[in-house]
Amino acid sequence: MEMEALITERQNAEFDVRSLKVVFWGGEQNFEMVSRMAAIAATDPVFERVDQVATSRTDLFKSGLRKAARVRQHVLDLSLSDREAYILRTFVDERSYADLHWNMFIPALEGQATEEQQEYWLPLARGMKIIGCYAQTELGHGSNVRGLETTATFDPTKDEFILESPTITSIKWWPGGLGKVATHALVQARLIIGKEDYGIHAFIVQLRYLENHKTLPGVIVGDIGTKYGNNTVDNGFLCFQSVHIPRMNMLMRISEVTKQGIYKSHPVPRGILYGAMVTAREIIISEASISLSRAVTIAVRYSAVRRQFGGSKHVPEEQVLNYVTQQKRLFPLLAAVYAFQFTAQWMRWLYEDIQERLKKNDFSTLAEVHSCTAGLKALTTSVAAAGIEECRKLCGGHGYLCSSGLPDLYTNYLPSCTYEGENIILYREVGRILLKTFADSQKGIDSSGTMAYISSLNNSNVNSCAAVEGKEFFDERGLLHAFEIRSLWLIQQCADKVSKTADFQAGLDEYAVEIVEMAQAHCQLITISKFHDKLQENIPGSGVKEQLVTLYYLYALSLMVEHVGDFLSARYLTVMQANLVQKQIIVLYKKIRMNAVALVDAFNHTDHFLGSTLGSYDGDAYNHLYKKAWKNNPLNDTLIPEGYEEYLRPILSGQHGGQLALSKL
Amino acid sequence: MEMEALITERQNAEFDVRSLKVVFWGGEQNFEMVSRMAAIAATDPVFERVDQVATSRTDLFKSGLRKAARVRQHVLDLSLSDREAYILRTFVDERSYADLHWNMFIPALEGQATEEQQEYWLPLARGMKIIGCYAQTELGHGSNVRGLETTATFDPTKDEFILESPTITSIKWWPGGLGKVATHALVQARLIIGKEDYGIHAFIVQLRYLENHKTLPGVIVGDIGTKYGNNTVDNGFLCFQSVHIPRMNMLMRISEVTKQGIYKSHPVPRGILYGAMVTAREIIISEASISLSRAVTIAVRYSAVRRQFGGSKHVPEEQVLNYVTQQKRLFPLLAAVYAFQFTAQWMRWLYEDIQERLKKNDFSTLAEVHSCTAGLKALTTSVAAAGIEECRKLCGGHGYLCSSGLPDLYTNYLPSCTYEGENIILYREVGRILLKTFADSQKGIDSSGTMAYISSLNNSNVNSCAAVEGKEFFDERGLLHAFEIRSLWLIQQCADKVSKTADFQAGLDEYAVEIVEMAQAHCQLITISKFHDKLQENIPGSGVKEQLVTLYYLYALSLMVEHVGDFLSARYLTVMQANLVQKQIIVLYKKIRMNAVALVDAFNHTDHFLGSTLGSYDGDAYNHLYKKAWKNNPLNDTLIPEGYEEYLRPILSGQHGGQLALSKL
Repeated sequence: MEMEALITERQNAEFDVRSLKVVFWGGEQNFEMVSRMAAIAATDPVFERVDQVATSRTDLFKSGLRKAARVRQHVLDLSLSDREAYILRTFVDERSYADLHWNMFIPALEGQATEEQQEYWLPLARGMKIIGCYAQTELGHGSNVRGLETTATFDPTKDEFILESPTITSIKWWPGGLGKVATHALVQARLIIGKEDYGIHAFIVQLRYLENHKTLPGVIVGDIGTKYGNNTVDNGFLCFQSVHIPRMNMLMRISEVTKQGIYKSHPVPRGILYGAMVTAREIIISEASISLSRAVTIAVRYSAVRRQFGGSKHVPEEQVLNYVTQQKRLFPLLAAVYAFQFTAQWMRWLYEDIQERLKKNDFSTLAEVHSCTAGLKALTTSVAAAGIEECRKLCGGHGYLCSSGLPDLYTNYLPSCTYEGENIILYREVGRILLKTFADSQKGIDSSGTMAYISSLNNSNVNSCAAVEGKEFFDERGLLHAFEIRSLWLIQQCADKVSKTADFQAGLDEYAVEIVEMAQAHCQLITISKFHDKLQENIPGSGVKEQLVTLYYLYALSLMVEHVGDFLSARYLTVMQANLVQKQIIVLYKKIRMNAVALVDAFNHTDHFLGSTLGSYDGDAYNHLYKKAWKNNPLNDTLIPEGYEEYLRPILSGQHGGQLALSKL
Repeated sequence: MEMEALITERQNAEFDVRSLKVVFWGGEQNFEMVSRMAAIAATDPVFERVDQVATSRTDLFKSGLRKAARVRQHVLDLSLSDREAYILRTFVDERSYADLHWNMFIPALEGQATEEQQEYWLPLARGMKIIGCYAQTELGHGSNVRGLETTATFDPTKDEFILESPTITSIKWWPGGLGKVATHALVQARLIIGKEDYGIHAFIVQLRYLENHKTLPGVIVGDIGTKYGNNTVDNGFLCFQSVHIPRMNMLMRISEVTKQGIYKSHPVPRGILYGAMVTAREIIISEASISLSRAVTIAVRYSAVRRQFGGSKHVPEEQVLNYVTQQKRLFPLLAAVYAFQFTAQWMRWLYEDIQERLKKNDFSTLAEVHSCTAGLKALTTSVAAAGIEECRKLCGGHGYLCSSGLPDLYTNYLPSCTYEGENIILYREVGRILLKTFADSQKGIDSSGTMAYISSLNNSNVNSCAAVEGKEFFDERGLLHAFEIRSLWLIQQCADKVSKTADFQAGLDEYAVEIVEMAQAHCQLITISKFHDKLQENIPGSGVKEQLVTLYYLYALSLMVEHVGDFLSARYLTVMQANLVQKQIIVLYKKIRMNAVALVDAFNHTDHFLGSTLGSYDGDAYNHLYKKAWKNNPLNDTLIPEGYEEYLRPILSGQHGGQLALSKL
């Protein structure tokens, strides 16, 4: 019965799934490549998943090493491009030092090393003759780079820097790959020349001998211990006790120290820096969509398989997917997957746009681009993390089993909310730019890009919603307008509050809560606007466009209900209209219900990538659960458990002899 | 510097911490007992915590056995009462079969067995001569008891029942203690006599021989595999293949089957059933408060120790606790700990009240009590679970380390949201009773208990808020009134919507989302009202009452801001007033900021119970973190990690010889 459920669901779908797969993955070519990489990950037995709880830490770490080595072999054997290798690592889905080496160490070299330095280090790094990590955060210092304490003091007599960890809080802490693997670290440290502190600069420090992996003198390094997730990675600590490195190991593209100890700044090549930033954030936003899409796939499929309540002797219980309480929590996440994916696709265009502009010395959009990508990172990663956990809950008790795939998915995903900028801090930065842009618009300076609405709405076309019937909310452009009005209203409120404080910075601190909410609203608007833009494109495939329009409505209207207080306060909606919206959403739930299984099939995930007994393509959840309980479960290897003689038998039989009679009952 | 931080905080506190400890723990006597049990857990080395990730599954399970045996020894040596033993197990904080035996199996016997059956089974169970588990849920059946498939068919020729698992979905799945330990299970199964299905009844089934722990014929039992948390427990599966049990193993207090196969119902002894239910839920609500209080303690202390941003060469960075964004997320949780604890204390009174009434054959409050305790279970467990995870996030990156104590706290706590009633299902049930009570009140029937406001507010004193200044919201009774109005408004809205549907049940399904929100609002109101009642008591201790009043305001006003859309829609608040509330909360943050560390000290938690490098009483977080990284970390046992020769060396040195030169740089 369980397996039939998904077959029926697929038969009832109203659109061409393969066409939507191509749209989701951004075109035929990329879809083909992605499918090829997913197939490698799914078919090579080395990439079989390990159980994070059942496996010892040492074996988890070794599993990470083993899979990284295997990926490397595929890369060389198949001559995979960097992008293909990245996608393959994504589908292997077990973090290791290699992710940090390729995603952090090499990009940092590309951004901060001089051409000469790049010529020396990049071939070594790209050939994995050295393995690098990125050592920035310290035990007592996370997001605030300026607070870092590690020092790199120039010694002109030897033409060297001496690295030192002066306090316990200055110990480098967290870098992935550092603990047991990396031969080199890109270390962020305070540059000291004479008595002068020149602030934070980047240095390449060798940690381990290449011939035997032993640590160099003065380098104290190790693993920081177990974590919520990602225990295949050796996140490390690093303490310097007078470690000497050549002067030329300082990365000198942005500033340099001469042999004589003279400090010089160089003009920053913005095209490369901003390009790298946009690319890095596009990847994070795309990953947010993909991670959330896995959880949504599992939850949708299992909700179609699982039955609860209703029913009678001759009628099976109701599919959980039919309950509106389930739909309300699950379907907006399904819509968010698409919204984030299209936002990431737009960022590929943004990258090109930035490059074009910089070539023409047009720096006008940089602040806005910096801010919007930061905010989108914060929005998408926090929605994805919370959404994955919500999907786990939507699978009921079985979602708590590791074999559901959801606990590991959540705990492994979580760091995205912290690295590359802690989300609250990013939102505050977005808020600062929004208020500045608003102030400029008041002075008649037009805002641009994702902030264009701030000046264009400013003094004219802000209207209340005119809808008198629920169906009027199915208005592609109208919804976008509604979120512009809401966002602008929040900006106006914040600007007003901040203007009454002693100074701008004090205002930002005092109204930080409101500013974060305002920034979040702005970022939600961006995702709605990019989803809206996508709908204006030519979307091929039978029924595909209709599905996307429905998802767009649901995405926007769910956010409207969630933040209805804003829309009421801004007097965009009346209480009556707010009720209409709530009711109209039910119409959308029904439409999506019909196609939900096909809409997650369109993510194209393999059973390997899902790694879930509950979410497998065949829908045979209960058989998978039962088989998995026997597989790789040491507790089921013996009938009598370890510990019985020592801890149970004395309690059960210690002081009485009645058990024999009882067992014969 | 880190350690000084907490000393200063404690010096600045404005109230007597010990007095608040006594209030929090419900009186001097209970406080003394709880402290004694916490001290046993903290000082006995057997109770040292294990790392859930670093420890293999087998060793986790053995650790559970070992600690359970040790608790048993303390219970016998010190002649601990049941309540003391329960509290000791709470502080040992490592779930095992013993929790299920004492908290599920024995109470079920007490509730459902006849006196004769109790005389036989209870001494065995209480002496732990047998170990029981509670086997209700099945692979395909969770909350809907009526959907269970396991059958117990009466065989009059042998005076026995035959237990059978007819399908894969009928396999018992989840019961704690079942997998490897329990000798007996209380099994919920369909009673079949002849061709008649009499529905779900309880049976005692022996699973394992008492003399050697081997399974009985036809009993297929094992562990269901790794879980998100609680991997010290052997949650199990159980499949019956024609297992025979004596007729008298059916629990016959509520209904019986005679030797001749005649089915008889008995009047249910409601006093015992309802008393057990209220007690069980009081424990869950108190546990919600305690679990959340641990997370809040860790987050508050570490936020006082941790510094980020601000600062300069001579001024340290700002304590994270000073940021309003941190206060906004953390302080309402601190207030919720107190609100839930006082609600649990009130439930002890409720238990007495129910017993009194039942003695007088007064059944009038039963439906209301059933509903309010169910709803409070749903509210407190879901707020606690989400709050623990929020506290983890509030500790920044380090909250992701297992040594912070927060990952395990969250994953071990989570099942509370599912067992004893899945929260959404409980809310729906509360909603049903609320709508029924509202309909009754329309007919002039007065509502009582926590629902009294439904009839008393109904046709008269519903006013809008009159406040024109923020400080007017500091009104103990006024806030309670505001939440009554909000709740009643939501009930009216739902009743109106449901009344327009085909029939009541269809309405409940169609508007399930709104009904859940209405039920949640009602339960929030109850917690506010019990907090309010507590403030009317005589509260001794210098400054204690003031602190509680501040926490009460914060608890209520935070909820008001969170659900401002309701208050605006109900026209209780204007947009202007909503802004006043938001501003007024800042005043509360400042008051609580002064006393935050002392307010968590008042929970009286030992460092053992907290189990956190970040939250230790001394505030020496960074030293604890660093030491813990070295302790019990197999990856740091060797300089060269396992796997190096096999997976790293070939990559690093495979195809080139340049590494030697490079290492000499």
